[in-house]
Amino acid sequence: MNVLGIHVMVELKECNPGLLDDLAYIREAMTQAADAAGATIIGESFHQFNPQGVTGILAISESHLCIHTWPEYGYAAADIFTCGENFDPSKAAQILIDKLESRAPLLTEYRRGILTELAATA
Amino acid sequence: MNVLGIHVMVELKECNPGLLDDLAYIREAMTQAADAAGATIIGESFHQFNPQGVTGILAISESHLCIHTWPEYGYAAADIFTCGENFDPSKAAQILIDKLESRAPLLTEYRRGILTELAATA
Repeated sequence: MNVLGIHVMVELKECNPGLLDDLAYIREAMTQAADAAGATIIGESFHQFNPQGVTGILAISESHLCIHTWPEYGYAAADIFTCGENFDPSKAAQILIDKLESRAPLLTEYRRGILTELAATA
Repeated sequence: MNVLGIHVMVELKECNPGLLDDLAYIREAMTQAADAAGATIIGESFHQFNPQGVTGILAISESHLCIHTWPEYGYAAADIFTCGENFDPSKAAQILIDKLESRAPLLTEYRRGILTELAATA
């Protein structure tokens, strides 16, 4: 692997709006996404906003999963940052797509820490 | 504003490696970054890894700040997701650049939730 991490932006458009305002459901979807992709959860922070919307963050040994939802637009913005070779971010993304019933998802992958640009200091 | 959020990737290259393995220092830098940019911190998750490296996540009312460090490469990967008009992610990024003494930072901005692509459901 020639990068330290892969950071996937997941635009979750045309979701089921009712699901996007349900903190317990979002938390379960995020946990399933992390588990299915082989991640180890080490911390979390979930918040319900008023009048609507949820933020959910999982710290994982392999970096993080975050989601922010806008039920009024049927939209959620997720990002999945992974390092190591044993974690497949596309599996986690697919679970979020399925669980939130997104009919128009869009994934963009961003390479983080390109090794040829970094000088080892140790 | 024609987007719901701005997501800034911050490649922090050529940092001071000693700072990157200091959880208390990273936590203080992240908190300063959030505060200076006008964010309200609502949750956090910080972790020290063995043999080295730190993960730090702040949930903020305006979305999130995350950082993952690789002291052995003098490198940290941060991302700052903001929604609303009162938060300037570039200010938060500059504080991380300064505090970690990055001599080769690179910022990339992603637009999240482009309104013309989203149909309001409410």
